[in-house]
Amino acid sequence: MIHDLAHIGHAELLTPRPEESLRFFEQVLGMEVEAREGQSVFLRGFGDYQRYSLKLTESERAGLGHMALRTWSPEALERRVEAIEATGLGRGWIDGDLGHGPAYQFSDPDGHAFELYFETEKYRAPEHLRPSLKNQPQRYVGRGAAVKRLDHVNLLAADVAANRAFAQDPLGFRLYERIELDDGTEAGAWLSLTIAAHELIYVADAKGLQGRLHHLAFWVDTREEVLRAADLFLENEVPIEAAPSKHAVAQGFFLYGFEPGGNRIEVTHGGYLVYDPDPEPTVWTEAERAKGQAWGVKTVESFHTYGT
Amino acid sequence: MIHDLAHIGHAELLTPRPEESLRFFEQVLGMEVEAREGQSVFLRGFGDYQRYSLKLTESERAGLGHMALRTWSPEALERRVEAIEATGLGRGWIDGDLGHGPAYQFSDPDGHAFELYFETEKYRAPEHLRPSLKNQPQRYVGRGAAVKRLDHVNLLAADVAANRAFAQDPLGFRLYERIELDDGTEAGAWLSLTIAAHELIYVADAKGLQGRLHHLAFWVDTREEVLRAADLFLENEVPIEAAPSKHAVAQGFFLYGFEPGGNRIEVTHGGYLVYDPDPEPTVWTEAERAKGQAWGVKTVESFHTYGT
Amino acid sequence: MIHDLAHIGHAELLTPRPEESLRFFEQVLGMEVEAREGQSVFLRGFGDYQRYSLKLTESERAGLGHMALRTWSPEALERRVEAIEATGLGRGWIDGDLGHGPAYQFSDPDGHAFELYFETEKYRAPEHLRPSLKNQPQRYVGRGAAVKRLDHVNLLAADVAANRAFAQDPLGFRLYERIELDDGTEAGAWLSLTIAAHELIYVADAKGLQGRLHHLAFWVDTREEVLRAADLFLENEVPIEAAPSKHAVAQGFFLYGFEPGGNRIEVTHGGYLVYDPDPEPTVWTEAERAKGQAWGVKTVESFHTYGT
Amino acid sequence: MIHDLAHIGHAELLTPRPEESLRFFEQVLGMEVEAREGQSVFLRGFGDYQRYSLKLTESERAGLGHMALRTWSPEALERRVEAIEATGLGRGWIDGDLGHGPAYQFSDPDGHAFELYFETEKYRAPEHLRPSLKNQPQRYVGRGAAVKRLDHVNLLAADVAANRAFAQDPLGFRLYERIELDDGTEAGAWLSLTIAAHELIYVADAKGLQGRLHHLAFWVDTREEVLRAADLFLENEVPIEAAPSKHAVAQGFFLYGFEPGGNRIEVTHGGYLVYDPDPEPTVWTEAERAKGQAWGVKTVESFHTYGT
Repeated sequence: MIHDLAHIGHAELLTPRPEESLRFFEQVLGMEVEAREGQSVFLRGFGDYQRYSLKLTESERAGLGHMALRTWSPEALERRVEAIEATGLGRGWIDGDLGHGPAYQFSDPDGHAFELYFETEKYRAPEHLRPSLKNQPQRYVGRGAAVKRLDHVNLLAADVAANRAFAQDPLGFRLYERIELDDGTEAGAWLSLTIAAHELIYVADAKGLQGRLHHLAFWVDTREEVLRAADLFLENEVPIEAAPSKHAVAQGFFLYGFEPGGNRIEVTHGGYLVYDPDPEPTVWTEAERAKGQAWGVKTVESFHTYGT
Repeated sequence: MIHDLAHIGHAELLTPRPEESLRFFEQVLGMEVEAREGQSVFLRGFGDYQRYSLKLTESERAGLGHMALRTWSPEALERRVEAIEATGLGRGWIDGDLGHGPAYQFSDPDGHAFELYFETEKYRAPEHLRPSLKNQPQRYVGRGAAVKRLDHVNLLAADVAANRAFAQDPLGFRLYERIELDDGTEAGAWLSLTIAAHELIYVADAKGLQGRLHHLAFWVDTREEVLRAADLFLENEVPIEAAPSKHAVAQGFFLYGFEPGGNRIEVTHGGYLVYDPDPEPTVWTEAERAKGQAWGVKTVESFHTYGT
Repeated sequence: MIHDLAHIGHAELLTPRPEESLRFFEQVLGMEVEAREGQSVFLRGFGDYQRYSLKLTESERAGLGHMALRTWSPEALERRVEAIEATGLGRGWIDGDLGHGPAYQFSDPDGHAFELYFETEKYRAPEHLRPSLKNQPQRYVGRGAAVKRLDHVNLLAADVAANRAFAQDPLGFRLYERIELDDGTEAGAWLSLTIAAHELIYVADAKGLQGRLHHLAFWVDTREEVLRAADLFLENEVPIEAAPSKHAVAQGFFLYGFEPGGNRIEVTHGGYLVYDPDPEPTVWTEAERAKGQAWGVKTVESFHTYGT
Repeated sequence: MIHDLAHIGHAELLTPRPEESLRFFEQVLGMEVEAREGQSVFLRGFGDYQRYSLKLTESERAGLGHMALRTWSPEALERRVEAIEATGLGRGWIDGDLGHGPAYQFSDPDGHAFELYFETEKYRAPEHLRPSLKNQPQRYVGRGAAVKRLDHVNLLAADVAANRAFAQDPLGFRLYERIELDDGTEAGAWLSLTIAAHELIYVADAKGLQGRLHHLAFWVDTREEVLRAADLFLENEVPIEAAPSKHAVAQGFFLYGFEPGGNRIEVTHGGYLVYDPDPEPTVWTEAERAKGQAWGVKTVESFHTYGT
């Protein structure tokens, strides 16, 4: 069991409509702008312990810029870099970025850009965002959907099995659930570094393309807040792709919509915790998936085809 | 059975700290400023069908300015005025106020100022507050606790029985619950014009004073929002008098705090609906009330003594 | 304004599979069996103030037996009977049924059987169902979905306009919302005797049949309980027709499934309260209804065609 | 960083009133009886992946029998045993117990009995408890409070610092929060093996006694279920020590009551997840703790003194 990676530190999202996207993340999702630099704005949820979990960058096309994983220690970082280099997917070191130290860049087999880092700046709230409870990094302002933190990243991949395997080793993700089609093809994999039911998901890219993002998911503390977010999406003309309901896989409670840049965004709560250190991954068949979500909701077509 | 009064249209709250009070109602409770006139600001919840339900007026002392009841029809208004005049507590007509037509002023036996009116302006939302669902008067903005509407008014009275009787006849309130002390004194009365468990409450003024307000209560649609409001009170330094819990009487879920002007404000949800047209009022004894709220929470001393 | 009817007292549901239906209402919805008589079982929610709100009767076919409305007083009963007789839809008096006194039978223009009554037995809980809070008729047992009471009845009608008009006068229901197709046809009407957003609904029978039931709806006190009910439906193999979501019309939060007898059952919470005594009914157009429910969920085909 | 222990596998609770205690855990908390052996009954929540998480054992006095920790692997078990033996607190191996393999017994400095084990039986639900969703070990029956799993154990200790240090090393718990009195004494420590905010808590034993239990906490998936559990406690005459509210420390949402054997039981939800691999523990001062819980609720005296 590899215990070298701690969690997803942040994700960089690309948007061709930076102002509208920023308004969405700040006013509708309720995140705080922590910093701006070049063509990027760095945003945070009230529960993020680092300075930010979302880097929003102007770009010609929507999609994932990169995602960055934090290690348990400097030694863990070295060990993982060595292991990644052995796969031939390493790209090399950068000095760091706003809020964190040296980072090692690499890609997964599908071509998504990843980084590993350990050194980070812990968030220190300015006066107007100082929380009442000291075990919380930032004041709960309650603006918009008031998301707490980045929860998970869902990536499309031409070859799910190859990327899932790479996430398990060398990265050290644990596999909790997966979908296996009747022909034996792997169509989805739910992976985690912790007891959370998923942090990284790979699903098959229906168009066979590479490097695409399915969605970023942000956490709220109750299902009621997911329902409330749906009202806010409605009132703010955010296109709702899938109204709140409960996933069968991983049992998370979801709401999917599109931010103005075109990227799919999820507001999520729930799921289960995996305390078992040696769980047998749940395998879903094609027939089982055809039943729809937990309560029978059928997924809209775009959910299976649209990516950025 | 008298069916002449429809509901509490609005309440006027007096505050010696108008700016801070306004900030509380606008930013923390999340109400909208609909109009300003003289020393008053008129505020509304997103679910109010009239222009406002709260008139906030600068004054030397905190307390209730008046509360206004809307009748079912012009004829019902006339009938009630006649009945009130017969009691000697009538004060006479005024031309109306912002948003409503002619009103008849009177007082309850304890001296609280009341008005009756029928003609009213229905709210028409400006562009930026236009709702997505047309069966809702205003857009759900989601700012602060985002209260929906004024729910009920709780008045302190030197003589609960006299005021309760006046509310029943001539006003036509129905009595759903009351507290009777061991010596036979009436210590509280929960009254309503509708199937809602209470709209007007009288509780004994422990100091024997007259004309005091216990609290105004604003409605939110879930208990989760009451809990969320407690977080917002905490983060905004609103003194919490009673943390969220469930009342035994009327079974409402509550949160009590003080707005900067000193008035007690409740954020409320729940209770039950009284479909029975001839219910036997529930009578609580001294011993039963001593058990505290539904889940055993003891009421803090200030709750029994503080009024404005 | 007619104030003679108080609320829907109970509904009689017909089932060709009485044992399985009873198991559903008792174990899954969590109702209590109050009495049995002949081919009928009488069931109650923990918040019903009368002995029962559901009469479940064995029958060859599923559907509505009758629904019974309680009046505000004996005089109100007489007045309504007189008014109904004038329409020619009256059928005459019966001595009463278990738990209530003399009742006047009639039908709506579509042929659904109705009764009016005033005299009723208030529920007195046996020892094992005695509540801890005396303002509640029965102990909250918490079994299954633990519904509180019958909330509303939705009837299919060949001619919605005619039945809606009959409900308004002579019955005295208020009309809060309705659907008007592009050709001017009325396709749905949401009616109420109280401030609750609906108690009786008529929707157009897509098959042009008469006397059919669309669904009975039972109330729970939170949206979370509706979500919990969906889990219970899933675990108890109750076919879920529509997973929990929010209606656009009336804004109720819903879950639809089929009880074993084939009747559609809703678990509901939410909606809004209509305090306005002279509200302008909300009118929905064909185009607006085509948008689906509040958060965009499209209604399944069966919802528009299936009735019992 | 030691990554050898995975989580608390189960706790054994002693009760002088085994039948009444069993009724509480089965009917009020809604657990399932998985097995009986000798004077013990083994119970499980619907989310437990092992056969049980609670062993309820008849005994002359209430309190904790033992608690058992599962390791990440057989090798991890060996490493921890070696480390514990070095402290002199080891007691030796047993062959195992119902549902798990060989276990190593030891005590913490305060004398509470612990066990470590790795081999375990994964739960296989019998037909009537087979879940609809295959990523869930057991059907959600929904009986009573329907707790999902054992969440955490709170132990009283004469010397918190010594026990906290032992939990960190050799056991490998991480310290997330602690209370430090003005005189420097440690009064409480919140420890975890995972990203969950706490799994093991030590608080100072106000009576200076040793080996006492403060409470066992069982998890539900929503705050609404905690509120619902309070209604069930009320209706089932379970003494409520503390009505639902939110802790300041760890921010968990709580309900405390006493099971018939006298042991304090918590129904819990919430808290936060600690993704940070090197968090600075939050330190609460005496003055901060004097403010009460998150929303100002003062803890009842018994909470500070009563243990079993």
